[in-house]
Amino acid sequence: MATINIDILEQIQIIEHYKQTLAILSWDAKTKGPKNARSQNAKIQGTLTKELYSKQTDKKFARNIERSLEKDLSELERKQLEFHLKEYKRLSIIPVEDVHQFSVIKAAAHGNWSEAKKQNNFKLVENDLQILIDTKKRFASLSNRNLSEYDQLLDEYEPGVLTGTLDNMFDQVKQAIFPLLNSIRNASIQPDSSFLSAPFLIDNQIKLGKKLLNSIGYQFESGEVSETMHPFSTGIHTHDARLAVRFEENNIKLSSLMFLHEGGHSLYNQQISKRLDTTGLGVYTSMGLHESQSIFWEKVIGKHEGFWKNHFHLLREFGPSIYKDISFDQFYFALNEVKPSFIRYESDDVTYPLHIIIRYELEKELFSGNLKVTDLPDAWNEKYDNYLGIRPRTDSEGVLQDGHWYGGAFGYFPSYLIGFIYAAQIRQVLMREFRNFDDLINDGKLSIFLEWQKEHIHRFGKLKTSKEILGDLAIEKINEEPLIQYLTEKYKKLYKL
Amino acid sequence: MATINIDILEQIQIIEHYKQTLAILSWDAKTKGPKNARSQNAKIQGTLTKELYSKQTDKKFARNIERSLEKDLSELERKQLEFHLKEYKRLSIIPVEDVHQFSVIKAAAHGNWSEAKKQNNFKLVENDLQILIDTKKRFASLSNRNLSEYDQLLDEYEPGVLTGTLDNMFDQVKQAIFPLLNSIRNASIQPDSSFLSAPFLIDNQIKLGKKLLNSIGYQFESGEVSETMHPFSTGIHTHDARLAVRFEENNIKLSSLMFLHEGGHSLYNQQISKRLDTTGLGVYTSMGLHESQSIFWEKVIGKHEGFWKNHFHLLREFGPSIYKDISFDQFYFALNEVKPSFIRYESDDVTYPLHIIIRYELEKELFSGNLKVTDLPDAWNEKYDNYLGIRPRTDSEGVLQDGHWYGGAFGYFPSYLIGFIYAAQIRQVLMREFRNFDDLINDGKLSIFLEWQKEHIHRFGKLKTSKEILGDLAIEKINEEPLIQYLTEKYKKLYKL
Repeated sequence: MATINIDILEQIQIIEHYKQTLAILSWDAKTKGPKNARSQNAKIQGTLTKELYSKQTDKKFARNIERSLEKDLSELERKQLEFHLKEYKRLSIIPVEDVHQFSVIKAAAHGNWSEAKKQNNFKLVENDLQILIDTKKRFASLSNRNLSEYDQLLDEYEPGVLTGTLDNMFDQVKQAIFPLLNSIRNASIQPDSSFLSAPFLIDNQIKLGKKLLNSIGYQFESGEVSETMHPFSTGIHTHDARLAVRFEENNIKLSSLMFLHEGGHSLYNQQISKRLDTTGLGVYTSMGLHESQSIFWEKVIGKHEGFWKNHFHLLREFGPSIYKDISFDQFYFALNEVKPSFIRYESDDVTYPLHIIIRYELEKELFSGNLKVTDLPDAWNEKYDNYLGIRPRTDSEGVLQDGHWYGGAFGYFPSYLIGFIYAAQIRQVLMREFRNFDDLINDGKLSIFLEWQKEHIHRFGKLKTSKEILGDLAIEKINEEPLIQYLTEKYKKLYKL
Repeated sequence: MATINIDILEQIQIIEHYKQTLAILSWDAKTKGPKNARSQNAKIQGTLTKELYSKQTDKKFARNIERSLEKDLSELERKQLEFHLKEYKRLSIIPVEDVHQFSVIKAAAHGNWSEAKKQNNFKLVENDLQILIDTKKRFASLSNRNLSEYDQLLDEYEPGVLTGTLDNMFDQVKQAIFPLLNSIRNASIQPDSSFLSAPFLIDNQIKLGKKLLNSIGYQFESGEVSETMHPFSTGIHTHDARLAVRFEENNIKLSSLMFLHEGGHSLYNQQISKRLDTTGLGVYTSMGLHESQSIFWEKVIGKHEGFWKNHFHLLREFGPSIYKDISFDQFYFALNEVKPSFIRYESDDVTYPLHIIIRYELEKELFSGNLKVTDLPDAWNEKYDNYLGIRPRTDSEGVLQDGHWYGGAFGYFPSYLIGFIYAAQIRQVLMREFRNFDDLINDGKLSIFLEWQKEHIHRFGKLKTSKEILGDLAIEKINEEPLIQYLTEKYKKLYKL
């Protein structure tokens, strides 16, 4: 069997090292990096991005790959080369100067967003947002694929799951959630969750969070835990899967669930097969599947009664004065309270999908031109009013809450709900595979799930598409039914409906 | 006046960004970076080093600079171009493959050293050390400068201060320290310093250290403080001057003085003129001068009676159970205790120069071929016995204690003593300039020194050589006399000799 030309392998190594460098630079800037260094550190990232781009779009590299692909290759070799050729084709459509300029615009816009959110002033980013949308549309128009511009953006995050699928699926979710939410609102029992906002020492929140990470199997020697403004995880490589969490003294629920959410991402990053390390394929296969793993650990496990029966003692240990008089049942009901709120990543499981659907609908309108950027805040508030029955009092808790759009990430939000839908579908598979699914959680045997995820999902990296991975689990296509069923059953039982 | 060709300026920017990237990668690896990621992260650094090298040694870049230098340029423009041309000439002597291979050898040797130190087994690095010395000699021999190989290495750290100067100067230092040390050993009063090794909460050591940093004027928003195995500071750029310190529960003196030492380096890094930011000249001018600044803040200020009169309350605040019964005088004498010990960076001010001189003498012998690597541990122990009257019991507390040699840094150690000598010379200048020098310290008016350092030393970056900077302070040449005088006066008074 022929082996790949050494020049190609070296170039792939270099490309990988640049990507890993950029991941470390970004981690550094978002966690401990000094405040006054932000502007310069953004410039450094801009330069490295441009350098990486020139490696990825090198014509000689692409020609070498094409020649190698004519040879007799192993499956891994072929997939590796196909991946890099695809990247070459996707990237080389856009001139390098545009790439660099876009990265500068994005960095500036993201900085302006931060300020706009602080000042509650959407006007500060209105122009940036228009430019970002126009640029993204222009980039998409350079491709010769037969897809709308917005579908092309969706395709980058979850290949093949486009508006044709999402429109109908998200409508079904809405139609199921609206009546469920209404019943919950009118339920005769409601939790008292006031103790969840009692002051809880940040140092103890960190200790508690690390215990939770330990429980789900996070490997601390192949990662790092830090503090940040906006929680995230980053898989620099399989030996280096980091996560950063945000803390509020009055919100122990937020940090605990964030540890599990970002921890879930990191478990995926840590369990990708080491044999993919040098190939470029040693990363998650799609954003939707990645999100399904974080949501599995945050929502399916991390809001499960059995999981907390095993961990409730930690709250009493780290927050004794608050939790000495709280019963487990009180805590569990409060943790799962359903209550419309403004901030997406603090929301409960029932309203969470609506937060995403609102963003999806607005993105579509922005890209079709039916919605003007100047009208976006009103449209946002209108939708929150219609879907959740609450109207943001400020743009900071409305359209300015998330940074995604102001960093040029359009088509990203839907993957959060796709992930939740996948997580529910995967839960069904697990319940067929392990008839004692709930007992395993009750007994703290979580490593069984982690092993299973490694075997069936994580280890493949980009060697398989999410469609292939799910197909091998007999999930023929994405389907919202399991999610609707899961939410309906869980919350009807909880609220005794 | 002609301006520099835009291509050159862009290339200089890119080179700067690579250097800054490497500084962040190195910081990350040495502080919080995961244990299991070390090997991969070293490879990433190797690739980026090679990429940087190819930019710095680009022939077209050098030709463009040469052409520009024929034009009418401002002083800043000329110095900037001259610096990069000099770098080009210095670096391009060595083939890129050798550079890459050497970086791999260094990384491996440094890893082996870490293991050898743990296992107390010099044999594990004997071969590495030989290869590193041979390679450094070979690289030096490629140059056509009329200097010995070892002098060329010295010249990289403190230009112009070579064996011809050091031999005599260090001998004078030895001849002064030996009798002083002997008198101290036989002094009728000796401090009781046992309380300095009482357990002191690490969290409180950090809090205390940060207060000290604040006192000397460190700008936290343009830097970061972290924990590490081997204390260091890094000036990524003027807005990003970080420092990392090591903690031992039983050694409050170590961390406090390290905060001041690394803080002193960081003050230099933070006070370089911002107008040099994009030129490549916005870094410290020489290792010896850099060290003089850290030693000024650690030893001249940080072991001064007046300084601690203003800060002793912090020890009572953060270590109340230990310090409630300790008087200021007890503390001050203990802090300045002179006692031969094995570890360089834990040593007192009187024996510190001897630690450096030992390394200098051994390095010279290694490079002249008079000393074989296999005989190095014995030679080391012999010198400690002769100069300090103590003999290391293990190589871990002997020849394996510092990582410098095992990372290929030969000719580096002397700059530590050069720095101490400069610090004493600069102290003399300050005492002429400020007749109330001691009163300023007693009154906590440290910002006056910081401002003075900015004006006369820091702001110039590489725009001036250390020789020029010192020359402008009427320090015509390096001179050990002020150091000898400072040590003799201070310690005779302290020990009532």
